Amino acid sequence: MTVHLTNPELDLVLERTVDVAPQLVWKAWTTPELIVRWFAPRPWTTTTCELDLQPGGRFNTVMRSPEGDEYPNTGCVLVVEEGSRLVFTSGLGPGFRPQLVEGFAFTAVISIEPDGDGTKYTATAMHADASSRKSHADMGFHEGWGAALDQLVEVAKSR
Amino acid sequence: MTVHLTNPELDLVLERTVDVAPQLVWKAWTTPELIVRWFAPRPWTTTTCELDLQPGGRFNTVMRSPEGDEYPNTGCVLVVEEGSRLVFTSGLGPGFRPQLVEGFAFTAVISIEPDGDGTKYTATAMHADASSRKSHADMGFHEGWGAALDQLVEVAKSR
Repeated sequence: MTVHLTNPELDLVLERTVDVAPQLVWKAWTTPELIVRWFAPRPWTTTTCELDLQPGGRFNTVMRSPEGDEYPNTGCVLVVEEGSRLVFTSGLGPGFRPQLVEGFAFTAVISIEPDGDGTKYTATAMHADASSRKSHADMGFHEGWGAALDQLVEVAKSR
Repeated sequence: MTVHLTNPELDLVLERTVDVAPQLVWKAWTTPELIVRWFAPRPWTTTTCELDLQPGGRFNTVMRSPEGDEYPNTGCVLVVEEGSRLVFTSGLGPGFRPQLVEGFAFTAVISIEPDGDGTKYTATAMHADASSRKSHADMGFHEGWGAALDQLVEVAKSR
């Protein structure tokens, strides 16, 4: 049992129903070999993913821009509810250690619920303040996370 | 199961064996009515404590200086292992939301193990960088957490 306190003034939410089963969405979100295939919206790519799927475990990725520049991200897994919910944050690093963040930190809540034969998918990005939320929105949260979800669905269907 | 990665260059550790049973140390650390009696080293006091003892739950306190100034602190519970381990952070607020922190953030790991009839007590404060560790040390981490532990033992024995 965990607590969530959403706040529309601080959160960004992508909610969509997709036509793949919840278990496949969960697998795509929690298997590093699959994550690298969908996590970065093309033409960006994900070159590395390390995920230790337990509270305090690392969630590290490296994304590569079309120009070939690499951007490492480190984060910490907070909640693992098999098949239904994954929570992680960029505000802490592996082992729950605080980490200095350039720009803004966010905590992501990935919620996966059955919807007919498909999945109701809700990704919530929680921020410390409205200005961080705005920066994340201006960076293209909805387009980026939406395109990544399209890619996730492709990957899930290709299995 | 959770992960901890201690790092002596980034962590501060108070380790001591005290002559009260682990279950009483745990109760003193997890019961708001007891926390207010020991949490702030005298002559400081703790005027308020809210603790929702589950991952994502709030851990909020207000401390009052001898001059009567009040200092609110908000934090987030990360791990609750009944009777043996409590992990919380000031880097996230309630519900795992990132929060802006004045000064430095820290994650505290309170470890409680049986040692004869008493308790081996280990409090670890994890920081993002050596400069945060130094600030916390300079603020009097060892003296402050040590004096608070003396008070905790008093409270535990008075029950």
